[in-house]
Amino acid sequence: MTYRWGIVGTGRIAVAMVEGIRDAGGAVDVIASSSQERASAFAFEHDIPTSVSPHSAASHTAVDALYIATTNNLHHPLAVEALHAGKAVLCEKPVALNVAQTTEMIEAAKANDTFLMEAMWMVFQPYWRVVDQWLDQIGEVRWVQSDFGFPAEFLPDDRLLDPALGGGSLVDVGIYPLTMIHRMLGAPDKVSAVASVSDRGVDHQMAAVLQYASGAVGVAGCSIVADTPLEAVIAGPNGRIRVHSPFHVSQRVSLRREGDELLSANAAYQGSGYRFEVEEVHRCLDEGLIESPKRPWADTLAVMETMDEIRRQIGVEFPG
Amino acid sequence: MTYRWGIVGTGRIAVAMVEGIRDAGGAVDVIASSSQERASAFAFEHDIPTSVSPHSAASHTAVDALYIATTNNLHHPLAVEALHAGKAVLCEKPVALNVAQTTEMIEAAKANDTFLMEAMWMVFQPYWRVVDQWLDQIGEVRWVQSDFGFPAEFLPDDRLLDPALGGGSLVDVGIYPLTMIHRMLGAPDKVSAVASVSDRGVDHQMAAVLQYASGAVGVAGCSIVADTPLEAVIAGPNGRIRVHSPFHVSQRVSLRREGDELLSANAAYQGSGYRFEVEEVHRCLDEGLIESPKRPWADTLAVMETMDEIRRQIGVEFPG
Repeated sequence: MTYRWGIVGTGRIAVAMVEGIRDAGGAVDVIASSSQERASAFAFEHDIPTSVSPHSAASHTAVDALYIATTNNLHHPLAVEALHAGKAVLCEKPVALNVAQTTEMIEAAKANDTFLMEAMWMVFQPYWRVVDQWLDQIGEVRWVQSDFGFPAEFLPDDRLLDPALGGGSLVDVGIYPLTMIHRMLGAPDKVSAVASVSDRGVDHQMAAVLQYASGAVGVAGCSIVADTPLEAVIAGPNGRIRVHSPFHVSQRVSLRREGDELLSANAAYQGSGYRFEVEEVHRCLDEGLIESPKRPWADTLAVMETMDEIRRQIGVEFPG
Repeated sequence: MTYRWGIVGTGRIAVAMVEGIRDAGGAVDVIASSSQERASAFAFEHDIPTSVSPHSAASHTAVDALYIATTNNLHHPLAVEALHAGKAVLCEKPVALNVAQTTEMIEAAKANDTFLMEAMWMVFQPYWRVVDQWLDQIGEVRWVQSDFGFPAEFLPDDRLLDPALGGGSLVDVGIYPLTMIHRMLGAPDKVSAVASVSDRGVDHQMAAVLQYASGAVGVAGCSIVADTPLEAVIAGPNGRIRVHSPFHVSQRVSLRREGDELLSANAAYQGSGYRFEVEEVHRCLDEGLIESPKRPWADTLAVMETMDEIRRQIGVEFPG
């Protein structure tokens, strides 16, 4: 069947997801914003039938699935509302501001027997097929290093700089390297972090090291003020795999083995990189699942736990 | 004048330095080892007139300068002995096992008005001319990331695995990424580390994050069990410089600016990469200096302080 989507939020990511949903065979029937003007303009520009307020979207009859792309602080309340209304929810990362909110969302999905998934598009990218095939060749994964940094051009009242909107580098982009490390090594036994925190209390940069009982080590960094490599490296005793920049949606990965052999693989694809996560939602809905086996709640929760611990260490608190 | 060198130690690095010293116009007159057999064999193979014990080398009349390339635990006692004998000393990194030993060595150099330098060959590599020229183009340095990891092929009784010999990844190879970060950002305000530590108490892997009051962040990692990238990245708001693998003796650096421009520079050179540090010793001796302005004692000491703090955090202790 053709699933009918509502989108909450009218930012850059919402524009990208209109294409992603349509590429995946879905229909976008509802666009919602707290500003009726922005909702209407977006509806007109992207040929969407209905423009409403966020709360109307969460329970709108025309909607099978809701994609939530507001500022981070609104993910949790809107998702819970939609789940209680029986809507499938794909929620932008971070799905919430902390573990407590995330747990509430998962409980709401269970209680209503309704689908919920974190919009962690990275884990659905085609390059993983190559990476997973190559893993045998590097031996036991002992080292995973990844960074996500870019010099943001801050607008006045930028959400990235506002703790009340869930700003900062960690939850917005640090979640990618942390998810990469969790994807390869699981939840760490210990995490240790430093950061550069602004006068307003949001992190401009963060770097964290993760320790595992197996002896593996993870190295994660993020920044909204420096132009870092945007890469991931997965290393073992026999070689390493590099997921080239930008690693979260990379179309090129390479393998170095035994010191001197280099294989490069093109992982290019047609269309929007957002398509794959929407295809997963459709597949789960087709199969009557409320949880994606490819992005299970436990993984979302584990990364959120690591982020909570990092924020505790670097002294970043979100109000409320 | 032609400076006459003694070398203590007959390992791989001693072989490389015979070439380095000769490339730099010095003469190798004395080779020393605790094994008379190894010293004699080395002397024969490399055409060195005299083979002696380490203690004889430290005060040998044929020696202007002593290069110390023993296991890490012996650097400090041999250096102090040679300095008291009035010899110039170039000491392999780590120059000692901790700050206390390093301070004693510096005091011995001052007391005897004798030259002392850490053999941190990385800081003398030609690529720095390019890096330093490019720095203006990336803006304020806000992010420095570097790693040094390789899968060691451990011999029985490998020095790398023995705490009594000053083993482990941190002091042996972690010193390079830490020196890279110190080179760009100075001594950190805070360092936070994790590691994988063996049953014998040496670190197989270590990862550390460094925090600066300026808002800059450093990310360092090292391993003797995984094949990591061996790179350094220096990033600012306007771009980044990559020192390509192996970064400590790189012959290629590249610059990315404003997101889309990539300049690559060949920093290749003739001869041994060890030559440059020896040339610096000769230059300092020519000028009557006891401390190199390019590798001042304060820098050696600052990195050692960071390493002491990291070892404290990861629970690695050297006996004695």
